[in-house]
Amino acid sequence: MRIKPIGDRILIKYKEREEVTKSGIVLPDTVKEKPQIAEVIEVGPGGIVDGEKVEMVVKKGDKIIVSKYAGTEIKIDGEEYTIIRQDDVLAIIED
Amino acid sequence: MRIKPIGDRILIKYKEREEVTKSGIVLPDTVKEKPQIAEVIEVGPGGIVDGEKVEMVVKKGDKIIVSKYAGTEIKIDGEEYTIIRQDDVLAIIED
Amino acid sequence: MRIKPIGDRILIKYKEREEVTKSGIVLPDTVKEKPQIAEVIEVGPGGIVDGEKVEMVVKKGDKIIVSKYAGTEIKIDGEEYTIIRQDDVLAIIED
Amino acid sequence: MRIKPIGDRILIKYKEREEVTKSGIVLPDTVKEKPQIAEVIEVGPGGIVDGEKVEMVVKKGDKIIVSKYAGTEIKIDGEEYTIIRQDDVLAIIED
Amino acid sequence: MRIKPIGDRILIKYKEREEVTKSGIVLPDTVKEKPQIAEVIEVGPGGIVDGEKVEMVVKKGDKIIVSKYAGTEIKIDGEEYTIIRQDDVLAIIED
Amino acid sequence: MRIKPIGDRILIKYKEREEVTKSGIVLPDTVKEKPQIAEVIEVGPGGIVDGEKVEMVVKKGDKIIVSKYAGTEIKIDGEEYTIIRQDDVLAIIED
Amino acid sequence: MRIKPIGDRILIKYKEREEVTKSGIVLPDTVKEKPQIAEVIEVGPGGIVDGEKVEMVVKKGDKIIVSKYAGTEIKIDGEEYTIIRQDDVLAIIED
Repeated sequence: MRIKPIGDRILIKYKEREEVTKSGIVLPDTVKEKPQIAEVIEVGPGGIVDGEKVEMVVKKGDKIIVSKYAGTEIKIDGEEYTIIRQDDVLAIIED
Repeated sequence: MRIKPIGDRILIKYKEREEVTKSGIVLPDTVKEKPQIAEVIEVGPGGIVDGEKVEMVVKKGDKIIVSKYAGTEIKIDGEEYTIIRQDDVLAIIED
Repeated sequence: MRIKPIGDRILIKYKEREEVTKSGIVLPDTVKEKPQIAEVIEVGPGGIVDGEKVEMVVKKGDKIIVSKYAGTEIKIDGEEYTIIRQDDVLAIIED
Repeated sequence: MRIKPIGDRILIKYKEREEVTKSGIVLPDTVKEKPQIAEVIEVGPGGIVDGEKVEMVVKKGDKIIVSKYAGTEIKIDGEEYTIIRQDDVLAIIED
Repeated sequence: MRIKPIGDRILIKYKEREEVTKSGIVLPDTVKEKPQIAEVIEVGPGGIVDGEKVEMVVKKGDKIIVSKYAGTEIKIDGEEYTIIRQDDVLAIIED
Repeated sequence: MRIKPIGDRILIKYKEREEVTKSGIVLPDTVKEKPQIAEVIEVGPGGIVDGEKVEMVVKKGDKIIVSKYAGTEIKIDGEEYTIIRQDDVLAIIED
Repeated sequence: MRIKPIGDRILIKYKEREEVTKSGIVLPDTVKEKPQIAEVIEVGPGGIVDGEKVEMVVKKGDKIIVSKYAGTEIKIDGEEYTIIRQDDVLAIIED
C-alpha cells in the first residue's frame, strides 16, 4: 500500500523528540511543544494549486523543519504520519 | 437515479471504521474522530472553479484520505454520503 | 410576472421533506435540518461575476442538491422560494 | 437636485410592504423583516470597480429583489432611499 | 499650507447638519448619526492603488454622499476634516 | 549608522503634539490620540510588494499625515521612530 | 549541518537585548518586548511564493529590524533561532 499525496501535499513522519535529541541537533523551543523536525515520506506532484503553479522543492527522504500546528494526522499500520502542504515547510536540514 | 457533482465537487462514501480496521491499514489519530478514509462514488467535471481551471485527479473508485470536517452530508436511499471539493482530498491510497 | 435572477443567481424551490421521502430517494442527514433538495425555477444569465466568467451549468427544471444555509428566501404569490448562487449547487440529481 | 451614484452603485427606493401586498406579488419571508423589493431610481455608470470591469444590467425604473441588509440609507426631501451595489441585486421582477 | 491626499484619497469636510437642513435636501436616517454629506476639498491623483488603476471621478467642490464611518478625522487650523478613499464615496449630489 | 527600509516601508518620526501646536496647523481630533503628523526620515526603494509594483511618492523630509495605529515603533539612539508602509500615508502637507 | 530556508524564508538570530544596548543603537519601545534586531544567518532562494515572484533583498550577515511576533522559533545545538519570511523584515541596519 502507498499513500500518494495530491497537489502540493507531502506525507511526513515527525521525528521523535528523543531521536532528535540523540542526534543532538534541533529541538523545539519548549519541550511541551510538538516536534517540528520531520522526514519526508511521500511528495505530491505539485502542479496548479489554488490557481498558482507550485513546483515541489522538497523530496523523499529530506529532513525538514515544519510550521507549528500544520497538517492532518493519520495512522498507517499503527504508525503516525502527517500530511502537510509544501508551504508549511520552513527549511530543509542538510547534514 | 444518479448524483452528478458540479465543478470540482466529489461524491464520496466514508469507510466505516470497522471496515477500515479490518483492512488493517489507515486509522484516524483518535477513535473519537470521524473516519478520514472514503471511496469516491462520483466525480464532477472540474472546469473553471472560483475563476481557476481545476483538473480532476481523483476518479471513481479511488480510496482517498479526506481533510477533517470537509463537505456536506446527504442521505441517498438510506445510505450516508458526503459531497466534498477536490481540494479536500489529501491523498490517494494505492493498494 | 417573472423573476429574472441576475448574474450567476438561481431561483429555486425547496422540495418538501414529505415529497422527497415519498419519491424515496434523498434525505438530509437529520430531520431537523432544512431540506437540501430543490427544483430550479429560473436561472440567471451567468457572465462576469466577481471579475470571473461564470457559465451556467444548471437549467430550469433540474433537481439539485444545495449547500446548507445558502441563499435568500422570498415569497411569491404565497409560495416560498430561495435565490442562491450557482456555486451553492453541489450536485444535480438525474433520475 | 439629482443623486448620481458612483461606479456600480444604485439609488433605490424600497416598496412599502402595504404597496407590495396590494400588488399581490412578492413578500419577504416574515413580516418582521425589511421589504426586499425596491424600485431603481438612479444607476451608476459601472466601469472599473475593485479592479474588475462591471457592466450595469439594472436600469432606472426596474423593480428588483435586494439582498437583505444591503446598502446605506439616506433621506432626500423627507423620503427614505438606499444606495446599494449592483451585486446586492438578486433578481429583476418583470410583470 | 495645503494637504495633498495620496493615491485615491480625498480630503473632505462634512456639512453641518443644520446647514444641510437649511438647504432642505439630504439628511441621514436618524439625527443621532453623523452627517453623510460632505464637500470635496482636495483630491488625490489616483493611479495604482492596491495594484489596481484608480481613476478619480470626484473633483474639488463636489458635494458627495459618504459611506458611514469612513475615513480618518484630522483638524486643520481648528477646523475638522476627514480623509477618505474614493471608494467611500457613494454618490455625487448635483443641484 | 543608517536604517534602510525595505520595499514600500518608510521610517518616520512623529511630531510632538506641542511642536505641532506651535506651528499652529494640524491636530488630531482628540488630545488623547497619538499625533498623526510625522516627518519622513528614510524611504524604501518600492518595487514589487505583495506582487504589485509600488512606486514611492513620499520622499525624505516630507511632512505627512499618517493613518492611526499604523506601523512598528523602534528606538534609535534613544529617539523613537516608527516604520510604516507607504499605504499608511494619507496625505502630504505642503507649507 | 546546515539549515536551508525554503522560498522567501530567512533564518535569523535575535540579538540579545544586552548586546544591542552595548552597541548603543537600537532598542524596542519597551524593555518587556522581545528584541526586534536580528542577524541574518541563512536566506532562502526566493522564487514563486504564493504565486508571486519574490526577489531576496536581505543577505547573510545583514543586521535587520523584524516585525514583532514574526516567525517560528527553533533551537539548533542549544542556540535559539527564528525562521521568518522576508516580508517580516522592516529595514536593514547599515553601520
